[in-house]
Amino acid sequence: MSSNATVTAKEILSLSFSLDQFFLIIMGMVVYFMQCGFAFLEAGAVRSKNVTNILIKNVMDSFVSGIAYWIFGYAFAYGDGGKAQKFIGATYFASYDMPVDQYASFFFQYTFAATAATIVSGAVAERCEFIAYFAYSFVITGTFILLLKTFSYFDIAFFGFIYPVVTHWAWGSGWLVDGYNYGGDIGQIAYQDFAGSGVVHVLGGVCAFIGAALLGPRIGRFQKGSNVVGTLRGHSVPIAALGGFILFFGFLAFNGGSQLTISSEGDGAAVAVSVVNTIISASFAAFGSLIINRLHIFGNTWSLLVTINGALTGMVAACAGCNQMHPWSSAVLGLFAAMSYTLWSTVMKKMNIDDPLDAVAVHFGGGITGVILIAFLDKDDGILFNWDKKSGLKLGWQFVGLAAIIGWSALFSLVIFGILKCFGVLRVPREIEDKGLDIPKHNEPAYPVEAYGHGHIEKLIQ
Amino acid sequence: MSSNATVTAKEILSLSFSLDQFFLIIMGMVVYFMQCGFAFLEAGAVRSKNVTNILIKNVMDSFVSGIAYWIFGYAFAYGDGGKAQKFIGATYFASYDMPVDQYASFFFQYTFAATAATIVSGAVAERCEFIAYFAYSFVITGTFILLLKTFSYFDIAFFGFIYPVVTHWAWGSGWLVDGYNYGGDIGQIAYQDFAGSGVVHVLGGVCAFIGAALLGPRIGRFQKGSNVVGTLRGHSVPIAALGGFILFFGFLAFNGGSQLTISSEGDGAAVAVSVVNTIISASFAAFGSLIINRLHIFGNTWSLLVTINGALTGMVAACAGCNQMHPWSSAVLGLFAAMSYTLWSTVMKKMNIDDPLDAVAVHFGGGITGVILIAFLDKDDGILFNWDKKSGLKLGWQFVGLAAIIGWSALFSLVIFGILKCFGVLRVPREIEDKGLDIPKHNEPAYPVEAYGHGHIEKLIQ
Amino acid sequence: MSSNATVTAKEILSLSFSLDQFFLIIMGMVVYFMQCGFAFLEAGAVRSKNVTNILIKNVMDSFVSGIAYWIFGYAFAYGDGGKAQKFIGATYFASYDMPVDQYASFFFQYTFAATAATIVSGAVAERCEFIAYFAYSFVITGTFILLLKTFSYFDIAFFGFIYPVVTHWAWGSGWLVDGYNYGGDIGQIAYQDFAGSGVVHVLGGVCAFIGAALLGPRIGRFQKGSNVVGTLRGHSVPIAALGGFILFFGFLAFNGGSQLTISSEGDGAAVAVSVVNTIISASFAAFGSLIINRLHIFGNTWSLLVTINGALTGMVAACAGCNQMHPWSSAVLGLFAAMSYTLWSTVMKKMNIDDPLDAVAVHFGGGITGVILIAFLDKDDGILFNWDKKSGLKLGWQFVGLAAIIGWSALFSLVIFGILKCFGVLRVPREIEDKGLDIPKHNEPAYPVEAYGHGHIEKLIQ
Repeated sequence: MSSNATVTAKEILSLSFSLDQFFLIIMGMVVYFMQCGFAFLEAGAVRSKNVTNILIKNVMDSFVSGIAYWIFGYAFAYGDGGKAQKFIGATYFASYDMPVDQYASFFFQYTFAATAATIVSGAVAERCEFIAYFAYSFVITGTFILLLKTFSYFDIAFFGFIYPVVTHWAWGSGWLVDGYNYGGDIGQIAYQDFAGSGVVHVLGGVCAFIGAALLGPRIGRFQKGSNVVGTLRGHSVPIAALGGFILFFGFLAFNGGSQLTISSEGDGAAVAVSVVNTIISASFAAFGSLIINRLHIFGNTWSLLVTINGALTGMVAACAGCNQMHPWSSAVLGLFAAMSYTLWSTVMKKMNIDDPLDAVAVHFGGGITGVILIAFLDKDDGILFNWDKKSGLKLGWQFVGLAAIIGWSALFSLVIFGILKCFGVLRVPREIEDKGLDIPKHNEPAYPVEAYGHGHIEKLIQ
Repeated sequence: MSSNATVTAKEILSLSFSLDQFFLIIMGMVVYFMQCGFAFLEAGAVRSKNVTNILIKNVMDSFVSGIAYWIFGYAFAYGDGGKAQKFIGATYFASYDMPVDQYASFFFQYTFAATAATIVSGAVAERCEFIAYFAYSFVITGTFILLLKTFSYFDIAFFGFIYPVVTHWAWGSGWLVDGYNYGGDIGQIAYQDFAGSGVVHVLGGVCAFIGAALLGPRIGRFQKGSNVVGTLRGHSVPIAALGGFILFFGFLAFNGGSQLTISSEGDGAAVAVSVVNTIISASFAAFGSLIINRLHIFGNTWSLLVTINGALTGMVAACAGCNQMHPWSSAVLGLFAAMSYTLWSTVMKKMNIDDPLDAVAVHFGGGITGVILIAFLDKDDGILFNWDKKSGLKLGWQFVGLAAIIGWSALFSLVIFGILKCFGVLRVPREIEDKGLDIPKHNEPAYPVEAYGHGHIEKLIQ
Repeated sequence: MSSNATVTAKEILSLSFSLDQFFLIIMGMVVYFMQCGFAFLEAGAVRSKNVTNILIKNVMDSFVSGIAYWIFGYAFAYGDGGKAQKFIGATYFASYDMPVDQYASFFFQYTFAATAATIVSGAVAERCEFIAYFAYSFVITGTFILLLKTFSYFDIAFFGFIYPVVTHWAWGSGWLVDGYNYGGDIGQIAYQDFAGSGVVHVLGGVCAFIGAALLGPRIGRFQKGSNVVGTLRGHSVPIAALGGFILFFGFLAFNGGSQLTISSEGDGAAVAVSVVNTIISASFAAFGSLIINRLHIFGNTWSLLVTINGALTGMVAACAGCNQMHPWSSAVLGLFAAMSYTLWSTVMKKMNIDDPLDAVAVHFGGGITGVILIAFLDKDDGILFNWDKKSGLKLGWQFVGLAAIIGWSALFSLVIFGILKCFGVLRVPREIEDKGLDIPKHNEPAYPVEAYGHGHIEKLIQ
């Protein structure tokens, strides 16, 4: 080709397509790194005796998802479901016959699936059996019949597909994304959830809620007949903060990357708007949470952990419509997210449900805030900007979406955690909980005493 | 469009523009992650009793910047200032009327603003009031009237705009970037500062200097009538090193991303050259600092923390002209940076100013090295390559820029820190400093004693 | 140019080239961040008395590489070697005369060189002289005559070029990548190693093996006449896990980025396929290692550190051909990698060679698995897909490549470590090993006892 030859649309399409794949891969990589963020947010929030346990749960999350989402999950979510298309997909199992052009999309969706599963591990920390959690993360991210005999004391077959089916509904070609054609001036109305306030975070939050509720609280958390809540502090604020910082970074890719393409006109701006709205919502939510916790009956200190959780809640709330909001709407959204976080955190304590990470308050609390408020704040057809029947119907569809996601995930969580509980394999025995899981289950204390010495901390005791 | 249709310039421009936005977003994301780097570099360098405090300062930095830079900062920096354009911008407050195409640029500039504020937190660590710092970071990154009544014991109104105005001068359309037209063979000469050796690092370093000087040293750091400097070691070398590694990573985006576009011919090479020069300058600065500290009167051990600070100083020095240097010039620059770091670190101790992080030596010391040496090392019109009146005038403009930045930031820092000091709200009371800030101010000890036990460190005491 | 003007091939080529450089730079940045991953994987695995020492080794790795690879390494690897071209390159020393368009490539290759050197530091941890290691990393990543007089007690001149020469053979224009033309139906057959299972990991693993063997085991690791292996646990599981998570993230860029371009048709898909195969291989290797360690004679607990190492081994094994495998082949590869890891880890213990990080098992064990199995699993001409003379010859070339890499790196490692050992400067004295290296060598204890107190851990002792 001479350098003066004209270029055809085919060539430019090829270049655009490469660019889009590049975008999905790098954004997916950063979302993948969120596994590290969740792992450390959780590791810092548990006691030193359970650190290895929470870390291995998070490490395995990525890799179990890698297997389960590859074999089943992506097929259910983005395969062709034929007659069942409104409900579930059914091609590309184990990437069979999957066009090579779709691998970037597969990778990006895989990183989201891994994230969804991780939300639960925080809520069930410090008392859930390794195997119970482990099998569970298959069910959220894929679907798997697992002969747990091989795990020496389980014998349960799981079959589930919680997350992929919901993504099929809302992001694939399912009934939520299709919505309904009301005809006339109104036209098609559907469930809106850009980066997954509902699909990822409400879903994860519901599973976390059910898991924490069925497990029961950690020893020492609540006293019968008393309103005093034991704090059971985590063992390392800097480790938790490291996780928070990594998640702040990762969320920019989570929300920005959800545009899925970058090459079309307007894509660049849409991604940038999403990122900016995510930052603004997080900023106001962090600020709001900090102040609420300072002035409120909840406490009168400047809490770092509350601030981090507040910021994360703001980012979760921004998922639903960060591509469709004015920045000032994000500011409003962030303040609502801060309130929702505080509310749900309080409700959980009142209900005596022990969620060591406040995962329910962050993900469920933030998620429902995002799903509902986008119906008000969408700059084109939100209720605040366009008060008519159409925006009302839109709000209705947001509630339909929420109800579907909550119902579906609650049902499956109840069944799975319920069965595990019936068989007595959901929760570790009391003596192991007391002793911590790291040594009995993993023989890997997080900070082995014999590895310290010679002029360091231990000098103290000489 | 058929696949053989020819492509028009409009289509290719749209694609190029998307690519540029993608570039700014991903580079901005990595710069944003530098917040995590600063947080951990600082957290490792303080004593265990002040870890939560330094972390919350860094977390709030990102989010306070998110609010203040959005509402005021970007408008002052990149808005249209009309008649005052040479000095300050005045549109796009709270992104009002800001074209959607500018959001990527907004995001990238926001991440720089957040970084500038973070430099100060290291220098004032372990003794500065949370609120004093907090309000201060509004002033650096934006400008804000804050009724501190809401913070229960403050009642001060702040108004300032330190950083955005300087960026307007040097990177927006202000007088420093415009420079002066000397006519004839010489033409336009202006202040040169590609990624902000002066704009970001000298500015941050000056504020850090004033803050540390007005606060006074931590208890135990200097003894009256003695030349012995108390070390007051930080509590965790690995935590500090983690911060260092993250900053090394982030600086590549900080300097490479400052090209701002990637789609034009030569952009790719310019970014690559910037990144390579950053690495080479850092390598020689790290090596130089390591050796100086080993051979010098300053010590005779191989110090990790000195090496990390040396490398960072090399990266700071590379900011000013990493896009306009030969690699061997970067090697020379790195060695000068190492000397500047050692010099300023020593000077601070001689002046009995306590800078726990050596932030002044790294950022001020590295920054002035970069701003001045680029006038010698610029491959096109540096004094070493082109000894004439033009290169001399260029050096003059670098001094003008430095003087303006130092004067501006010193003035505002003195006013703000001075007022806070007058009102007695700059520094925490002596008993809180002794006890550490984490428990009295935040009720969140970094490593709560009750979270440890069961076969771990504490076994020691049985 | 009017917006309707047609676009010429020259313009599109320029845009494509910018895009490719962008791709190399961002991928290289993430690979560069792997330095942080290696540093923390290793820091967590040593005892608290050697943490600063292992961190400074890793920090200096990046920067020593920055100097040595710039001055010599890249020239030997990718320069023009004239008549010696099959064996070594010889232009671009200190980037002299290097076209500006090649800086992105230089940067990317530099990040790989830095990685290769880091592999060794784990295996020689806790007992190797700082200077011995330091000089050694010059030799791996570049080549350097170093007058060690300046280091106060050494006087040895080094000259070597281990890694760059091998990359010249396999990735530059050397004899391994050229291969041999068998003519007829078979044609050209050459050594295949996409992202460096052999070039990076086998090479690093061999050096690690020789280093660990010549150094001898740490005190307390093996007892004479006993089969009991002392564990000498590392001091912090979360620090090691942090390193692992960062490496998982970095490996996606390591393997995906090895495509080197993104703009050509098929590049995007190739990168995505590489990333997906890396994840799948890691997932099965992690799972496999977890199970083997649980069921096997090697232990009966769920080990986090084994799982992390297993996953890394799967990623190492994927390097050789992740761009040329079906996902199910990656699953098979991952299971083999898990077995190879376990095997080599056991062999090392039986041989009484002390490798604190299991670096040999991960990198050598994973590397040879990848180099050999790609000859079976390549989707186009692997033995499983295409059983004929051609695929047999291909397997032969893989063994030739392995033999060349192992021979070359073993030879130079033996010479260098041997000389250092003869001069008695390879290993620290016994009393320093006992005391730990941090205080005698660096005067920087990782966790200085005086930095703790006031309501934290130390309360215990009151």
